[in-house]
Amino acid sequence: MNLILLDDNDFIDDHRVRLSDRRFDHITGLLGKDLGDHLRTGRINGLMGQGVIEAIDSTGLTLTVHLDQQPPAPLAVTLLLALPRPKMLRRLLRGITSMGVKSLYLINSYRVDKSYWSSPLLHPGKMREQLCLGLEQGCDTVLPQVHLCPRFRPFVEDELPGISSSTINLVAHPGGDDGAFPYQPQVPACLAVGPEGGFIPYEIEKLKQADFGAVHFGERILTVETVVPALLSRFVR
Amino acid sequence: MNLILLDDNDFIDDHRVRLSDRRFDHITGLLGKDLGDHLRTGRINGLMGQGVIEAIDSTGLTLTVHLDQQPPAPLAVTLLLALPRPKMLRRLLRGITSMGVKSLYLINSYRVDKSYWSSPLLHPGKMREQLCLGLEQGCDTVLPQVHLCPRFRPFVEDELPGISSSTINLVAHPGGDDGAFPYQPQVPACLAVGPEGGFIPYEIEKLKQADFGAVHFGERILTVETVVPALLSRFVR
Repeated sequence: MNLILLDDNDFIDDHRVRLSDRRFDHITGLLGKDLGDHLRTGRINGLMGQGVIEAIDSTGLTLTVHLDQQPPAPLAVTLLLALPRPKMLRRLLRGITSMGVKSLYLINSYRVDKSYWSSPLLHPGKMREQLCLGLEQGCDTVLPQVHLCPRFRPFVEDELPGISSSTINLVAHPGGDDGAFPYQPQVPACLAVGPEGGFIPYEIEKLKQADFGAVHFGERILTVETVVPALLSRFVR
Repeated sequence: MNLILLDDNDFIDDHRVRLSDRRFDHITGLLGKDLGDHLRTGRINGLMGQGVIEAIDSTGLTLTVHLDQQPPAPLAVTLLLALPRPKMLRRLLRGITSMGVKSLYLINSYRVDKSYWSSPLLHPGKMREQLCLGLEQGCDTVLPQVHLCPRFRPFVEDELPGISSSTINLVAHPGGDDGAFPYQPQVPACLAVGPEGGFIPYEIEKLKQADFGAVHFGERILTVETVVPALLSRFVR
């Protein structure tokens, strides 16, 4: 937790928050902070700044906050990700958010196990927990927008043109015939990453028709969990 | 498992192997392969090629193998990594190996929990299991060399000069004052990554004295698990 992330509900007046949940435990326990100490804080979808501990008791603490800094610039990438298995999705949501992605489309693919679409992790509240952990890690306040797209073809044909009309569009595909993944891709970009085992040829064809270049990333085949931060890295300015 | 990785013990003669362990289950179960089917295979620290299933019974299968291809070129990065907690190390060993790292130094740092050094995962046999999983994922045969360096200062003063004398040397450090992490760093390179919470100033100073540039990677603070594939990505050709 590199940033204490504050929700509207935490505010007891314009400049003070009361924390009594895991953030309280983290601040007093792991960080070992005490009265008068400063903490990096930020308000969800708002500004960042400092918080000062003005009161602590056994059930919680009160921070006086002064928020006057903009959060870091978003990573200029819209990410389309074939829905991974829940355990991996949980880590990916945190990782992607910590790297600054603000727009994530979880899409279907032939090789996505149907059961993944009924994972409790896809409930908005559960997802938000993971996104907040990612913001706390990356020191950011702006929640990503996550869209669930459980039908591949209607998504690619009907929704994708509106999403990717003004971006550079790339699909990472082992053996992709549109060259190697660029080092400093143009931005804003829209990046599609398939499931373990990859997109099937039909899906690659549909993405190509939607103006996506199929690019490879070296000779090796990587897991989704490894390749997502690796690909996003190329966009980090 | 994108490659069936063979050990010397698997060979029953020069061109045939007998498999009866998890590889057998994987080939007949998950991959659904049968008599006469071809499989991508490779011999640990040797060549890669094809295997053909010539016999299957209830306890195992026999492959005839024809190995005539070189494994992919190594990633030209020596990685120094502050020892992570075991659960994360397990995933990192696989991920790093799948990306082609061939030389890994697990080093100490002030913020490395001492208990991590007694993890069973550091036993050579256990470590090799994870490295083999990484090779099977990345389609490679060459096992990385992993070195355990439980004392920071003797390592940096006595061993590191011999390791890093002919490489470009970078330590990833939030707020590092030697500029941003490069897009296509020169290779061969030696890359140091600290623990969660980062190297302490003394450690950064020692690495700088050993000719390491302290470079930052964007404004955000990432977990080791996210930042390692992200940084290695910049070296993927």
